[in-house]
Amino acid sequence: MRRPDGELEEEKVFKDPVHRYIHVRDELIWDLIGTKEFQRLRRIRQLGTTYVTFHGAEHTRFNHSLGVYEIMRRMVENLEKKGKWDADERLVCLASALLHDVGHGPFSHSFEKIFHMDHEKWTREIILGDTEINSVLRRMDDDFPLKVADVIAKTYDNKLLVSLISSQIDADRMDYLLRDAFYTGVSYGQFDMERILRVMRADEDQAVFKHSGMHAVEDYIMSRYQMYWQVYFHPVTRSAEVILSKILHRAKELLAQDYAFKLTPHHFLSMFNGKVTLRDYLKMDESVILFYFQEWEEEEDSILKDLCSRFMHRHLFKYVECDPSKQMVIWQELRDLYQKIGLDPDYYLVIDSSSDLPYDFYRAGEKDERVPIHLLMPDGKLRELSRESDLVESISGKKRTDHKLYYPKDLLMDQTEFPEEKQRIMALLVNQEG
Amino acid sequence: MRRPDGELEEEKVFKDPVHRYIHVRDELIWDLIGTKEFQRLRRIRQLGTTYVTFHGAEHTRFNHSLGVYEIMRRMVENLEKKGKWDADERLVCLASALLHDVGHGPFSHSFEKIFHMDHEKWTREIILGDTEINSVLRRMDDDFPLKVADVIAKTYDNKLLVSLISSQIDADRMDYLLRDAFYTGVSYGQFDMERILRVMRADEDQAVFKHSGMHAVEDYIMSRYQMYWQVYFHPVTRSAEVILSKILHRAKELLAQDYAFKLTPHHFLSMFNGKVTLRDYLKMDESVILFYFQEWEEEEDSILKDLCSRFMHRHLFKYVECDPSKQMVIWQELRDLYQKIGLDPDYYLVIDSSSDLPYDFYRAGEKDERVPIHLLMPDGKLRELSRESDLVESISGKKRTDHKLYYPKDLLMDQTEFPEEKQRIMALLVNQEG
Amino acid sequence: MRRPDGELEEEKVFKDPVHRYIHVRDELIWDLIGTKEFQRLRRIRQLGTTYVTFHGAEHTRFNHSLGVYEIMRRMVENLEKKGKWDADERLVCLASALLHDVGHGPFSHSFEKIFHMDHEKWTREIILGDTEINSVLRRMDDDFPLKVADVIAKTYDNKLLVSLISSQIDADRMDYLLRDAFYTGVSYGQFDMERILRVMRADEDQAVFKHSGMHAVEDYIMSRYQMYWQVYFHPVTRSAEVILSKILHRAKELLAQDYAFKLTPHHFLSMFNGKVTLRDYLKMDESVILFYFQEWEEEEDSILKDLCSRFMHRHLFKYVECDPSKQMVIWQELRDLYQKIGLDPDYYLVIDSSSDLPYDFYRAGEKDERVPIHLLMPDGKLRELSRESDLVESISGKKRTDHKLYYPKDLLMDQTEFPEEKQRIMALLVNQEG
Amino acid sequence: MRRPDGELEEEKVFKDPVHRYIHVRDELIWDLIGTKEFQRLRRIRQLGTTYVTFHGAEHTRFNHSLGVYEIMRRMVENLEKKGKWDADERLVCLASALLHDVGHGPFSHSFEKIFHMDHEKWTREIILGDTEINSVLRRMDDDFPLKVADVIAKTYDNKLLVSLISSQIDADRMDYLLRDAFYTGVSYGQFDMERILRVMRADEDQAVFKHSGMHAVEDYIMSRYQMYWQVYFHPVTRSAEVILSKILHRAKELLAQDYAFKLTPHHFLSMFNGKVTLRDYLKMDESVILFYFQEWEEEEDSILKDLCSRFMHRHLFKYVECDPSKQMVIWQELRDLYQKIGLDPDYYLVIDSSSDLPYDFYRAGEKDERVPIHLLMPDGKLRELSRESDLVESISGKKRTDHKLYYPKDLLMDQTEFPEEKQRIMALLVNQEG
Repeated sequence: MRRPDGELEEEKVFKDPVHRYIHVRDELIWDLIGTKEFQRLRRIRQLGTTYVTFHGAEHTRFNHSLGVYEIMRRMVENLEKKGKWDADERLVCLASALLHDVGHGPFSHSFEKIFHMDHEKWTREIILGDTEINSVLRRMDDDFPLKVADVIAKTYDNKLLVSLISSQIDADRMDYLLRDAFYTGVSYGQFDMERILRVMRADEDQAVFKHSGMHAVEDYIMSRYQMYWQVYFHPVTRSAEVILSKILHRAKELLAQDYAFKLTPHHFLSMFNGKVTLRDYLKMDESVILFYFQEWEEEEDSILKDLCSRFMHRHLFKYVECDPSKQMVIWQELRDLYQKIGLDPDYYLVIDSSSDLPYDFYRAGEKDERVPIHLLMPDGKLRELSRESDLVESISGKKRTDHKLYYPKDLLMDQTEFPEEKQRIMALLVNQEG
Repeated sequence: MRRPDGELEEEKVFKDPVHRYIHVRDELIWDLIGTKEFQRLRRIRQLGTTYVTFHGAEHTRFNHSLGVYEIMRRMVENLEKKGKWDADERLVCLASALLHDVGHGPFSHSFEKIFHMDHEKWTREIILGDTEINSVLRRMDDDFPLKVADVIAKTYDNKLLVSLISSQIDADRMDYLLRDAFYTGVSYGQFDMERILRVMRADEDQAVFKHSGMHAVEDYIMSRYQMYWQVYFHPVTRSAEVILSKILHRAKELLAQDYAFKLTPHHFLSMFNGKVTLRDYLKMDESVILFYFQEWEEEEDSILKDLCSRFMHRHLFKYVECDPSKQMVIWQELRDLYQKIGLDPDYYLVIDSSSDLPYDFYRAGEKDERVPIHLLMPDGKLRELSRESDLVESISGKKRTDHKLYYPKDLLMDQTEFPEEKQRIMALLVNQEG
Repeated sequence: MRRPDGELEEEKVFKDPVHRYIHVRDELIWDLIGTKEFQRLRRIRQLGTTYVTFHGAEHTRFNHSLGVYEIMRRMVENLEKKGKWDADERLVCLASALLHDVGHGPFSHSFEKIFHMDHEKWTREIILGDTEINSVLRRMDDDFPLKVADVIAKTYDNKLLVSLISSQIDADRMDYLLRDAFYTGVSYGQFDMERILRVMRADEDQAVFKHSGMHAVEDYIMSRYQMYWQVYFHPVTRSAEVILSKILHRAKELLAQDYAFKLTPHHFLSMFNGKVTLRDYLKMDESVILFYFQEWEEEEDSILKDLCSRFMHRHLFKYVECDPSKQMVIWQELRDLYQKIGLDPDYYLVIDSSSDLPYDFYRAGEKDERVPIHLLMPDGKLRELSRESDLVESISGKKRTDHKLYYPKDLLMDQTEFPEEKQRIMALLVNQEG
Repeated sequence: MRRPDGELEEEKVFKDPVHRYIHVRDELIWDLIGTKEFQRLRRIRQLGTTYVTFHGAEHTRFNHSLGVYEIMRRMVENLEKKGKWDADERLVCLASALLHDVGHGPFSHSFEKIFHMDHEKWTREIILGDTEINSVLRRMDDDFPLKVADVIAKTYDNKLLVSLISSQIDADRMDYLLRDAFYTGVSYGQFDMERILRVMRADEDQAVFKHSGMHAVEDYIMSRYQMYWQVYFHPVTRSAEVILSKILHRAKELLAQDYAFKLTPHHFLSMFNGKVTLRDYLKMDESVILFYFQEWEEEEDSILKDLCSRFMHRHLFKYVECDPSKQMVIWQELRDLYQKIGLDPDYYLVIDSSSDLPYDFYRAGEKDERVPIHLLMPDGKLRELSRESDLVESISGKKRTDHKLYYPKDLLMDQTEFPEEKQRIMALLVNQEG
């Protein structure tokens, strides 16, 4: 028998390949994990289409969310020992960590772009709306759901607490770097989290790190830098994402044209017309998406059919580097040639850009300003990380962008029809790269 | 440009978290991986419902199949160095390793039980039938698909080759133990594969192992033993599997009764009537299953609805140990009580038994006889493993069985109705365990 | 500034490759580590001559002692949480763990055999005698050193505490299995210590393990079994040990004969005459031994010279299996032949036997009886491990012994002199093996 | 029976905790490992005094040398596959890798400074002189020892081969980073060696790296950077080294003064007078050093006695940061105060500076110019690493130096005598740091 909203009679553990064990001793956390909105995260992969590049990366947001919770649990335990921690905030903190991604849908990146949705808004609705999660949270207190939602939205009063879950070095980032490195099999994501947690101290409005642990923090920043370019922005992954976006785009367009689908896409209707209810949203998961894509392989519309088939069977677009400034010169020629050979350039000639700002210090007045990481010096003063670390300084504030132009090389290589135009297209594309 | 059915111009590698890298230098292998039948394995988890117990275990059969291929590649490379290897068989061997599981469907175990299907038969059909895989294989030779199918079916002439992929110590088992241990996070599945591969030698009709490597082989057998009881037969996993089976069972029954589904289960029709075509079969994947289960949460039929909701949201059945011999005494009483309170015992009172024979030597005349593992002694003679190893001897031929009785504890604990009957049921169940 | 015999102002950590970090918060522990008797353990390798077989195994008893302390610290922390722990005993426990091996000398196994010494007696003397360790311990209390010595001697009242450091599953064994596996590079020593610590419970007079963790305990027993045969009893390691013992033996004999050493072996005199003081003993370390061995390579005595040269340059004896019962038949013939060719059989024809009893339950009346491992069953009763585990049952109480006969093959193969006799010796030796 | 200077009948393997297995198939390599000059490396720790800081770092140069050999073996195997490799050079390459450190003595860094010795010169003498190593090498060819010595001295014609063993990314550095990280337990030294080896290509006079592997190379450079500052230049390690140097210094001075040692330091005589023979040199190992240091703890000379006791029992000097420019102001005052209280500042007030240049490109005309790392671009051209990598660029050519001032805090804190002077000294030292 459990004590209501207290501790479980016996601590529960989850075996976790990254943190070895995930420990739960609070009934609140245990019951949140059991809600259907949280269980739904099992049907949404953490890294979207990355599995087409790194076959090991089949882990879900459920998996990651438990990990973020566990890191937060260890952070709080450490800060409690150091004595600068408000014990009342413990559960707010743990619940926020567990739920911070609960509003994610399948392949969020593409969905948000095409349907103008925002997983942060959905996270808030799930926490505050008529859900099992809300009902579990309210057992604590009527205000409790709002506290959790505010922490996740970064609007909560206690900025220290906010910084533990969303800052340039937080429980979320630490878990995903370690976890994504583990599942993809790349070694770049490794860093010494145990050390970072040990040198973490509570300052007034953010967590800071003892100077003696600077190298562990540097190593974390480098891991993040490497993971972005080696894993998250991998061009093959982006090819699958481009196709996925174009499928959603096409389906939306067909619906707008009153195209007669063989299977009516009930699950998409409210998305397409922009009136998605929470209930609709929660039904969306990767199974649903993949079910429709499989069905749509047999649609009449040749574009929808082709793109779905590409996505399901991993017949991806190829890519060339592209320099957007230079590209404009040949852009119109390429589109014209596409039209001639009967390929719609809106679907088959796609630029995708990724960019990353691996670390930044505060720049007054800029939007998206980031709270910098501070080191706690032996003399008790704080010092911004990049002023102490040459490595971090070298990448601070440097945004790096990568542009790729995606196209269906298989169709262009098959020159039984329009050989001249296709050769010209290929020449322009290759030339593009230089 | 690739040379037809020869080597790729440049070796390709997959990053793999278990074997670090998977190396492909043959165009044949590369093209097999690219077929839609093989890509489909990305939508079928390796360990079925195990993810409800070990959240890390979200890896697919695609992931595992590449691993088996890689181990086989290393085995063949080793045997080639030792000089006892027919070079012509190399690609037969690699293709068989890659494709050995290609006939698996989603949650195979339950499907095979309910629909009397056999993934080995489907593997054969996919290799020999009208598929992309068949067409890639036939580029080698008209006989090539049959060779591959025969190796997988263990009917191939070259028994040495067969033993590399299906024996008590083969590429398949080695990969799944290492991989499942990696993804679940349990340490039991570790063993020194590199050492086993190094001491492997080709005997006439099976791979044998130099005596000096016996301890590595022992360790492998122990890993297998531990993984079965710690992971594969975990009672929580089996609870999800019991529910899944009962869903399929219920759906089949409803169809037989001409029940009017809100969404006609097109994908299941041929399964239910036993006339599944290869095309139907290949459309089945976990997305499809989960899509239907989500839809069925809103069906009228209360059993189907309840079971689907349990599966989707992980409201599993609880279990007690049960001794089938003893159980018969109270079995009828339990069923009668179930009827009284309106619970169908066919769906809500389920015995599940798992058993494992971790290692066996040859027993003439018994069915399911297994080819034993042989050690190559310093004097050049072969000796069956359990005669040299006390550890292996201790578990040889000992079948261990575990019986559990599954029931919906939540329904029985809710005693607003039928309190007496439910208390009696709970008492009988608990008593059962003793 | 530290509080006297209290907590350090700031916890200290050692980076440890096996346990990641070793945490010290007690001034007592910190100061014990700093004593010269403890620092001396840095000059004594944990695995004696094992480095000649596994070059990675160069770690010292200092390294291991910190590890045992760390495991004990975690055990105590766990038991404190479970509430069945006498807080006063905490430091007794930690100090005992840290100091349990402090009486070890260099290559203890050989030294104890040749000089009839006993590292347990020396441990006691170091703790109770006039040492820095004693003086640090006495800061706690005049009785404190005796308590620590009694725990290590297993005569302490609190048997639970004794069992944590010396039983069939204790902090000492857990550390050395993990550590020796780590440094040698063999995978056999791995087991899930974290799980074992989690299922450990305090019973009246021993630590017991929750039944749910049985498989982790099984795995530990198997690791122990494998490490003994794969590492600890490796025949090449024993060859170096045989030579080492014979060097000590020879030096003792030469001293008894008033042989004039070029360098008087001051450090050995009291050992040879059996009147070793604590001060003498503490000066003995591997540097001293190796220094003398290097000097003795230039002695007149051909046996001492040859054996030292063999040890220093790893020109080891070869070995054959030998069956002591059968061997007696040819033993005299071999010795006679040795005499003929001028090889002293006392130094060049050596039988070495190793035996292990991997696990045992209690056998009343037998000496060396061992306290068995008990599982805590769901019903609260205790049950001896081998009654629940087939694996453990299979090796319980089974003593396995390995006999090897060591000889200088190089000398026997060089048949410029006495070819006939040497051929006969080789024939007898090879025959021996069969 | 082995074929002379050919392949071993059966490949030998060493179990290695870093590379898992070290494979030897050449009789030459096997026999080199067996020589006494190579076995001597077992008595010389890889990281000198680092073990006082990281207790795990007890591994020897023997251990590392095997690792460098193994990496070279894999490099050569890879390059052979790529077809740009002169097969005749294979054994030159492997032998050079194995022997590159064979001239190291105990605590080389201090010895070389005090005795003006040079391990590279000794390496050459061991290879070319009257040694077992020379005799094994000459079995290949009379020129063979010279080839090996020239490769190690970087004067060999084939610059590609030289670059494999000494460049900014070579077998030596790769092994020591991985190995030192493994044994110390720090995570910083990890990088993906397998990937680096796979993207390595042979250019005319150096190994280059395919551009696609740039991130693995970056990661290696970062590892190197971190290991230097986290491990190699650790101030506590340097404290032990400072004491060691001062012991050697003192002993040299005493000998020059005809001080009467209780035990004549035979092993040091030739070092002190600068006429060390190869035979003398080869007798020097850590056992010898430690033996003398233990003896010297009982010498009359109070400085020698104190310093030896400090080294043996790890009573190290403390340190403050020091800015050499600023320091001169107070330097004389400190030395004067030292004199007053009877402490010899030459031994008890020591500045130690460490500096590292983590990566550099070519700067014509500078001494110590380094061959830069080149990337092989997709267009076949070479490009210097720091021009492609922001990270590497940020640290290229930036020498970082760390100065510490070491002093015996324990003596200064004990203010029973000269309280005023000692307080003043402490104040000056602390002030120094600011």
